[in-house]
Amino acid sequence: MRFLAVVSYDGTNYFGWQIQPNLVTIQEEIEKAISKILNTPTKIYGSGRTDTGVHAYNQTFHFDSDKIVDIDKFRYSLNSVLPKDIYVKSITKVDDDFHARFDVKEKEYMYLLNNSGTYDVFNRRYINQFPQHLDKDLIKEGALLFIGKHDFKNFTTKEEDQDNFIRTINDINVIYENGQYIFIFKGDGFMRYMVRMIVGTLIELGLHKIDLDFIRNKLNDSKRDPVSFRAASYGLYLSRVKY
Amino acid sequence: MRFLAVVSYDGTNYFGWQIQPNLVTIQEEIEKAISKILNTPTKIYGSGRTDTGVHAYNQTFHFDSDKIVDIDKFRYSLNSVLPKDIYVKSITKVDDDFHARFDVKEKEYMYLLNNSGTYDVFNRRYINQFPQHLDKDLIKEGALLFIGKHDFKNFTTKEEDQDNFIRTINDINVIYENGQYIFIFKGDGFMRYMVRMIVGTLIELGLHKIDLDFIRNKLNDSKRDPVSFRAASYGLYLSRVKY
Repeated sequence: MRFLAVVSYDGTNYFGWQIQPNLVTIQEEIEKAISKILNTPTKIYGSGRTDTGVHAYNQTFHFDSDKIVDIDKFRYSLNSVLPKDIYVKSITKVDDDFHARFDVKEKEYMYLLNNSGTYDVFNRRYINQFPQHLDKDLIKEGALLFIGKHDFKNFTTKEEDQDNFIRTINDINVIYENGQYIFIFKGDGFMRYMVRMIVGTLIELGLHKIDLDFIRNKLNDSKRDPVSFRAASYGLYLSRVKY
Repeated sequence: MRFLAVVSYDGTNYFGWQIQPNLVTIQEEIEKAISKILNTPTKIYGSGRTDTGVHAYNQTFHFDSDKIVDIDKFRYSLNSVLPKDIYVKSITKVDDDFHARFDVKEKEYMYLLNNSGTYDVFNRRYINQFPQHLDKDLIKEGALLFIGKHDFKNFTTKEEDQDNFIRTINDINVIYENGQYIFIFKGDGFMRYMVRMIVGTLIELGLHKIDLDFIRNKLNDSKRDPVSFRAASYGLYLSRVKY
């Protein structure tokens, strides 16, 4: 039987989602916990990776097991074995051909930025604290340029090697209140550092260090020359995966 | 010249406010930082102590110095020297006879309790996560019993040795929304563990393990026999000091 789980995690102390030798990762912690409870080595398949320090409100993964009788009890045991910074919010039975990564319809990321000028000690791991004044209207205008189907080769890391860099961003919602920004990105898929590089670019725009044409050119440039801006990891959350 | 400072801190990694030999405390960190910048040993006087693990949105302290010319610059330097979990929000010049502790008119504490049943990984250090169902109406009714002038000898630790245990709680506001409780206490002074012991008692009440008469008796009892309930430190915030 195949199960789909929704998990939230504080990424502060992890080298991202994906298992890597000698590094503590979220996938590894979850696999260890599930394998321990089920008393069988069990692999999990995430909706995708998150990078070092990035958080998740609702990451998803699937796994197979024929040993689970009571899902609620299993989830309870799992959460009691998992470290305090990883919490499985729900587990549901799905069809055997469901795949947490290949069946994704839309992903949502959230980026939190404190531009109030007052540093918040309680959110120092969870919100990018950025004191310099930003031009809010220009940031909102700049965000609109990224919406739609674009070649995002200049908004992902140089190391990213893809057959094609075309992605569709369905929406970018910029919510601003009392100096706090929430950027909500929805799209069919995001490449490595893509959200952080877009937010980093919007911050530069808000500082008037670049202009709207800079963004237009980077989106239409024929040569590959990724922007050097990347907003801090700890402001980023994988907030929803839609199937 | 005398200065009044307002400071916020994440108490997670500290043995409370007050300087103690061989323990890391908030007072010590601030004195070290001020003394370093002013290049003179400088003592600070807080509005009162906070215990191990307790947070502050707005703790206050005063200190004397004749070396500060630009308050804003000084505050900026201070925050750059202080650890990331302590942040001085404001510094203002006050009269030479002002005292951060003796001149307090009212103190406000806030207690945060997550009773939604969903564990929040991002607030595991900042909100008491309590999954068992609580009787909200009974908790609100119980809170009312504590308002006013009472002998609180049974709502402070046995070790507390005071000339008198009479205190006045001006108000307890219990805000409840989507399983989240915010308790706001206002009063002329709170003894050691007093807020946490009252919240701990209200939780027992919400679980129907004690009743309203238990509280009435504890408030009117002639003998000293403090309650054994004490809510977790990390849900508690010193939120305001009024002069």
